[in-house]
Amino acid sequence: MPNPKAELRERIHEWITLHREAGTALLQQMVRIASTQGNEKEVQLLVADQLRGLRMDVDMWEPDGEELAGHPYFCSPRSRFAGSPNVVGVRKGTGGGRSILLNGHVDVVPEGQRNQWAYDPYSGEVVDGKLYGRGSTDMKGGNTALLLALGAIQGLGLKLKGDVIFQSVVEEESGGAGTLAAILRGYRADAALIPEPTNFRIFPKQQGSMWFRIEVKGRSAHGGTRYEGVSAIEKSIKVVQHILALEKERNSRITDPLYANNPIPIPINLGVIQGGNWPSSVPDTVKLEGRMGVAPEEKLQDAKEEMLGWLEQLKDVDPWFAEHPPELTWFGAQWVPGSVDPEHPLMQVLMEQFRAVKQDEPVIEASPWGTDGGLLTQLGDTPCLVFGPGITQVAHYPNEHIVLEDVFVAAEIIALTLIAWCGFDRMEA
Amino acid sequence: MPNPKAELRERIHEWITLHREAGTALLQQMVRIASTQGNEKEVQLLVADQLRGLRMDVDMWEPDGEELAGHPYFCSPRSRFAGSPNVVGVRKGTGGGRSILLNGHVDVVPEGQRNQWAYDPYSGEVVDGKLYGRGSTDMKGGNTALLLALGAIQGLGLKLKGDVIFQSVVEEESGGAGTLAAILRGYRADAALIPEPTNFRIFPKQQGSMWFRIEVKGRSAHGGTRYEGVSAIEKSIKVVQHILALEKERNSRITDPLYANNPIPIPINLGVIQGGNWPSSVPDTVKLEGRMGVAPEEKLQDAKEEMLGWLEQLKDVDPWFAEHPPELTWFGAQWVPGSVDPEHPLMQVLMEQFRAVKQDEPVIEASPWGTDGGLLTQLGDTPCLVFGPGITQVAHYPNEHIVLEDVFVAAEIIALTLIAWCGFDRMEA
Repeated sequence: MPNPKAELRERIHEWITLHREAGTALLQQMVRIASTQGNEKEVQLLVADQLRGLRMDVDMWEPDGEELAGHPYFCSPRSRFAGSPNVVGVRKGTGGGRSILLNGHVDVVPEGQRNQWAYDPYSGEVVDGKLYGRGSTDMKGGNTALLLALGAIQGLGLKLKGDVIFQSVVEEESGGAGTLAAILRGYRADAALIPEPTNFRIFPKQQGSMWFRIEVKGRSAHGGTRYEGVSAIEKSIKVVQHILALEKERNSRITDPLYANNPIPIPINLGVIQGGNWPSSVPDTVKLEGRMGVAPEEKLQDAKEEMLGWLEQLKDVDPWFAEHPPELTWFGAQWVPGSVDPEHPLMQVLMEQFRAVKQDEPVIEASPWGTDGGLLTQLGDTPCLVFGPGITQVAHYPNEHIVLEDVFVAAEIIALTLIAWCGFDRMEA
Repeated sequence: MPNPKAELRERIHEWITLHREAGTALLQQMVRIASTQGNEKEVQLLVADQLRGLRMDVDMWEPDGEELAGHPYFCSPRSRFAGSPNVVGVRKGTGGGRSILLNGHVDVVPEGQRNQWAYDPYSGEVVDGKLYGRGSTDMKGGNTALLLALGAIQGLGLKLKGDVIFQSVVEEESGGAGTLAAILRGYRADAALIPEPTNFRIFPKQQGSMWFRIEVKGRSAHGGTRYEGVSAIEKSIKVVQHILALEKERNSRITDPLYANNPIPIPINLGVIQGGNWPSSVPDTVKLEGRMGVAPEEKLQDAKEEMLGWLEQLKDVDPWFAEHPPELTWFGAQWVPGSVDPEHPLMQVLMEQFRAVKQDEPVIEASPWGTDGGLLTQLGDTPCLVFGPGITQVAHYPNEHIVLEDVFVAAEIIALTLIAWCGFDRMEA
């Protein structure tokens, strides 16, 4: 296995150390653009500029909503992507090396209530070595690590043998339509890496997930004669309990050692309950909304069918459900699960560079959430690992931030991984 | 017991039959005024005119929000009653007879979705002997019966011995602030009658009720690692089950034969559930809203304390509740329960007139809902019966309507009841 020598490691480290300020400024610039859904163009233009600076061929296009709409993996709250371009940069290798696809999303979730933020959510404020702002961790910090890694390789004049494809995508937060569009455009590689905030853990497998809605029915009546009605709240209790039993059943089947420390590898989370609109009326409907975790090797469709079949059994729990079956719909977002063999060569390369830089043993896990990596692995034929700086605990929350040191360390590990994976044959003139 | 002779009954019947058209027109006129909360003035001016036509002394005033605010029985979503006057008409008797207080509310609940109505909700359309419109049953039909009854007594030149007090009140639908204001203004009588839609059943007792809100707490987390959080939905299941057990406990204590046919004499209805706002987050709060039925002889405060104490026991159900007790608040509406001895003399009089007019035995029950009668009985020292035309099944719903024939029959029974109760000594010149 090719392995950058200690001297090369040292030079990479030096280059990145020298470019800390520039890296910080770049991340700040990206965080200051509020690239929520539908508003990604400005940050993508910035990324495209960076890629051109890295002498990559840049492909920028708006996903075609009509083309995507018919695709079984398409899942988005919108059907038009005007103003939300993908950007892909390609640097052909000199030949004979393995290709790699680097993927990061630029869309960020909304900032929520501003008064819960200590700093403006789009300030990019740096305090005590942490850069604050929506998207700093999820995942502009990871994207900055990728760009720094590529910058170091170029800066040191290294010519990689394998192709490098850099995908800066939209729409990860809503189900992956950006990466789907990139796959359909034909981009493939021997392996892929997504620097989502794993806090340096390596995820060869990732949980997928899908959102569902269940409508539980009752029959309305005045609260004073509530026995004339049927409470959808009471019926929904049975549905919730039935779903908890399904979660138990599904998780009892998970034997993957990567989930050994996870009490619920593939949770079914009920996130929303809503029913009735008048204290003194019997509610005739309760709506439940949730997220069903999907095992790394599982097909979305199989999980959907299991849920549907399970809900059909409710009629044995309570005859009411035979006449009034709860209605199940899948809506909103979905993330395709992904599974890469822990023995995959990229795993070996990444682990080795991790050890070399961090002087520690990497933690290998299955992720408790989905990324676009599932699409790349399952649909794009490009086995994808997830590994990056930042912690998920702050993602999507007020005061999201990232430790800048982690961005630079990740950049080093990634640069060395690219060099080891793609190979290099000479310094440029 | 004084009892109008058959001949007098015949003349009352004739008078009301002759005035069917006028009665229908009056009810129509009232229904065409959308007297929802805050918009009662126009209909009250109409009622005041009617009362003056009946040679009553009219007292019209807007309840004083500041005076009411400090009263323990005050419960209203508003503190100002500008534009929402009460109207009281008083006709002094010739002396020596028992006084009576007639009470009816003019406020109506909103019409809801207009497209669910076959006719305009404020049309007063008459089809097949039914008059349609919001408030037709609840309770402008009953009010019309009162006015017709008084009209018949006047029209036949009967002078009653006892005083008649007619209260046309606001705010019954939101907790009785109108009747409370009338009580505080000093109006009292030997007994009272409210012609709410009982479908001719006689209610000497009535269930009170109060609205409550319970906030159940959890701890937020990402749905993919939901075991890091605590689901407020799962905790709310325990709260709901605990409340159902309280309902069972409270109803096991009800032995009143008037509730013999009622499966849940004093229900605790959970009408609203609402929690979480994102399918893939663990919800940290669930709000429950409901209506607690209060037994006819029970004090509101005692019922409140029982609920509070019961919820405190939740810590024995699940230690989570010891650290995170659900928060109970009483809000919105409340209706004071009421209980009149079924042997009360007005019961006897009313039952007798019912038998005479309907040639049938009256049904005596305890009502499954509250009216302003509880306030009159408990606070106003005026034992109140509830008896009137119309069925509650259509009240508060689209296509609310009343069978006009029932209004006229109720008017006859009420006229005869007033005559028998108050007594009369001569025809006017």
